[in-house]
Amino acid sequence: MLSLPVRRLHGPGPSPVAPAVLQALSLPCIGHMDPEFMRVMNEVREMLQQVFQTENQMTLACSGTGSAGAEMLMDNLVEPGDRCLIGVNGVFGGRLAEKARRAGGEVHTLEAEWGQVFETDRLLAEIERLQPTVVALVHAETSTGALQPFDQLAEAVHRHGGLLVMDCVTSLSGLPVLIDEWGIDAAYSGTQKCLSCPPGLSPVTLSPRAMEKVKRRRSKVNSWYLDLTLVGDYWSGSRAYHHTAPVNMNFALHEALRLVLEEGLEARFARHRQAHEQLKRGLLDRGFSYASDPDHSLPMLNLVNLPAAIADEAAVRRRLLDEFNLEIGGGLGKLAGKCWRIGLMGHGATEESVTAILDAIDAVLPAAG
Amino acid sequence: MLSLPVRRLHGPGPSPVAPAVLQALSLPCIGHMDPEFMRVMNEVREMLQQVFQTENQMTLACSGTGSAGAEMLMDNLVEPGDRCLIGVNGVFGGRLAEKARRAGGEVHTLEAEWGQVFETDRLLAEIERLQPTVVALVHAETSTGALQPFDQLAEAVHRHGGLLVMDCVTSLSGLPVLIDEWGIDAAYSGTQKCLSCPPGLSPVTLSPRAMEKVKRRRSKVNSWYLDLTLVGDYWSGSRAYHHTAPVNMNFALHEALRLVLEEGLEARFARHRQAHEQLKRGLLDRGFSYASDPDHSLPMLNLVNLPAAIADEAAVRRRLLDEFNLEIGGGLGKLAGKCWRIGLMGHGATEESVTAILDAIDAVLPAAG
Repeated sequence: MLSLPVRRLHGPGPSPVAPAVLQALSLPCIGHMDPEFMRVMNEVREMLQQVFQTENQMTLACSGTGSAGAEMLMDNLVEPGDRCLIGVNGVFGGRLAEKARRAGGEVHTLEAEWGQVFETDRLLAEIERLQPTVVALVHAETSTGALQPFDQLAEAVHRHGGLLVMDCVTSLSGLPVLIDEWGIDAAYSGTQKCLSCPPGLSPVTLSPRAMEKVKRRRSKVNSWYLDLTLVGDYWSGSRAYHHTAPVNMNFALHEALRLVLEEGLEARFARHRQAHEQLKRGLLDRGFSYASDPDHSLPMLNLVNLPAAIADEAAVRRRLLDEFNLEIGGGLGKLAGKCWRIGLMGHGATEESVTAILDAIDAVLPAAG
Repeated sequence: MLSLPVRRLHGPGPSPVAPAVLQALSLPCIGHMDPEFMRVMNEVREMLQQVFQTENQMTLACSGTGSAGAEMLMDNLVEPGDRCLIGVNGVFGGRLAEKARRAGGEVHTLEAEWGQVFETDRLLAEIERLQPTVVALVHAETSTGALQPFDQLAEAVHRHGGLLVMDCVTSLSGLPVLIDEWGIDAAYSGTQKCLSCPPGLSPVTLSPRAMEKVKRRRSKVNSWYLDLTLVGDYWSGSRAYHHTAPVNMNFALHEALRLVLEEGLEARFARHRQAHEQLKRGLLDRGFSYASDPDHSLPMLNLVNLPAAIADEAAVRRRLLDEFNLEIGGGLGKLAGKCWRIGLMGHGATEESVTAILDAIDAVLPAAG
């Protein structure tokens, strides 16, 4: 049998998983067409609607990780030749653009410094100029720790018949994600961030307006596995067999969502903010500085520049892992080797976790403080 | 917390999962870039190579269910305009054809009665006539219980520079699957059949010849999530981050593979045959008859016609489920309402299971026997 270390997961995800979620994960498997599994799917959908704060009927857990959810939305919403406006201020915006291109979209990217966000006026001007069919932005850029505001965008996008798509992989259940209030037409997340479930599923939600676009497609979706018409039918339509859903992963997500709603979204957001403030004070005291826009920093993912005492950042992270079982993320893409990404997500956004992180940093950096 | 029944899983999969596999599934999550997870991935690859009986370096667990593995192979191996020959004698052959079409292939299907297999001479003649770039066949048709022979095909396919692709979702580790000996260039399976792991991953393997085709592609793969060049790099190349792998599902697969190899492939095949023979005797005694070609019937998936005593087959299956927690599969596609599919897969291919199945059938069918 596998023997594995027990890690403290404070990188960019996966995040720590509550024991009850692991227990649900290991319940005896049942069939993907079993009426009891249909009940699990229904309850997962209803709880996802609450967490997404939406009434969208088309809300489900895509049978792949967050990248599969992103691809499901791009593949289904973008038809060959569709004009897309995609914000790229980090790795995940770049990936959205690549997926839209592979779906056949005419992709226009809008760039910003990594760690910065897009100003609403700039976005509105580009939307007015391009009148795109799809506008996609990352709410919480896991590669940079930046939080993109979404207010005022939907009206402008809808005026030209477009759809507004949001990556909320890292923000869902750690920060307000108001799908209906903000007029978001489609969003995807991941289970392994603030939901504190192991990776393997991608919660997605689509508005009736987005589903109209899917129904009116002139061409087939590139992907059969991610074809929303087929997947949606299995999740909430005729229940026709499409693929064998990852049954146990859905058990785990069910329990993770139950825990989120038991705590309450507002209390959960406050807990993430509090842990972030405590970590921030500790890091600033130790010579770290924040690398993301201070007015738009994520609480659950802290992008920091390193103090001078850290020469070889990868070696220090390796010591934290080997000696303290503490996982901290390195920089991604153009931030590799320059920054750390410290995650305080879901079950890991606690005072106890922050103390453990700071203590470990103190132990490997005797000169700091 | 979820409260669920404990089922006896004897449909077309998922199959019963051993307690040790559920235990591995619920080990504390670790990071997808953790050196310890890299070790798990390496060991999963090595064990998959043994189960596939191949030396293919490009052997990995695709982060989706079996249908994702099928799509990964079609998307990567088929370029727009590529001529494909696909055998359709059941639901899953039809799906392969659909996926090849969505990948842009010029798809030629070869049809056979459901429950029958393709004669080698007929296949060889079609291969000679069409000289296809990709030939894809289903080894064990889960919808019909038929076992397709693969000998003599590879040489003919390779003579014209083509690739031979195999769906072994239901056969892997229940019947011999000799990737290298049979000259198969690419194959995909699922975790939830004879491997007796929950659904959620798809083992795939590709020969160096198949990977040459991938490297020489003139166009990008439709799917970013399933792009083998990127996924392969994460699994065994530079280890560059691609997506967040379903970590815990890989723990479960690791343990499932360990159990397969501990038992030994030959012993496992024999156990599947023995359970099948016992079930077959019992079913024939009770007025069932086999609906698949008697010379090419799968041991792990029994397609049977129902005795006259069963008028409403769905109602009887529902009683088996509700009163005996026994899941039996109905017919799929054109066999819906006409046949049952009784699975004896992996951990469920035992004398005790067969006795339980026959006892339950006797209890709901007092007139039979």
